[in-house]
Amino acid sequence: MRADYINPFIEALSRTFSTMLDCPATRGGLRLKDRQESEHDISGVIGLSGQAAGTVVLNFSEGVALRAAGHMLMAEYESIDQDVQDAIGELTNMVAGAAKAQLEEYQLSISLPNVISGAGRAINFPSDVPALVVPFDTPWGPISMEVGLTDARVAAGV
Amino acid sequence: MRADYINPFIEALSRTFSTMLDCPATRGGLRLKDRQESEHDISGVIGLSGQAAGTVVLNFSEGVALRAAGHMLMAEYESIDQDVQDAIGELTNMVAGAAKAQLEEYQLSISLPNVISGAGRAINFPSDVPALVVPFDTPWGPISMEVGLTDARVAAGV
Repeated sequence: MRADYINPFIEALSRTFSTMLDCPATRGGLRLKDRQESEHDISGVIGLSGQAAGTVVLNFSEGVALRAAGHMLMAEYESIDQDVQDAIGELTNMVAGAAKAQLEEYQLSISLPNVISGAGRAINFPSDVPALVVPFDTPWGPISMEVGLTDARVAAGV
Repeated sequence: MRADYINPFIEALSRTFSTMLDCPATRGGLRLKDRQESEHDISGVIGLSGQAAGTVVLNFSEGVALRAAGHMLMAEYESIDQDVQDAIGELTNMVAGAAKAQLEEYQLSISLPNVISGAGRAINFPSDVPALVVPFDTPWGPISMEVGLTDARVAAGV
């Protein structure tokens, strides 16, 4: 799969942050995800499937997650509760939804967002699917997005 | 969504365990997932989408994960490494794939399996989607499966 599938995800994240959160997100350099990396407090995870199969993960520090949820829900949060988790899930859903609209050739649909919290966890991709990581700087702090997408499994009927 | 969507997943897990792992899995009582529950060492997560949207999570203790991976890969494992993670991902993929074949009316396709490891983590579903938990007993130890599936979001165009 060509690595330029990542661009619609990068654009989707920037646009979602600026329109939904009024928060500019500036991308940093793209890199391959290392195994077992886990540098964030809370992650939104959503699957994509259709003529390709993939996952998008958005990683937040607690501070950024609280600010983002507060902005979306017009409230103040001091810890990661159910509302914050739902807001992070919805944000992940919006980014994946905006990206899939730009990837028409794969006829993607998106699954439910799950939100994973807790220290010491690692979210791994299959070893035959290299996932790309894009860091972003925002005024609230850093975030990152991981995307793995493959058409090989779909073609193989796996 | 009717709760009987769970039955194809239960059958898929039992059949996958018996055919792929030569390991009978006997289901226990169905219940709703509590918030923040996290009782396992390693989880396979995969998204489903199409005319419904959902997630399947398979939860394993380390011991069961090592036995399952060992059986699939004809090797012995003493800790959760890349091979074990890939095997758990593939097992999750197979269960979701077998279940979707029985849920034709939703025209589901499956995303990439991600494998989440580490203590202290919680995998949450959106609060408007009640996820069901099915425990299973196997000769290797207990496992559990969580499934959330909704057609509401798809209908609403979310």
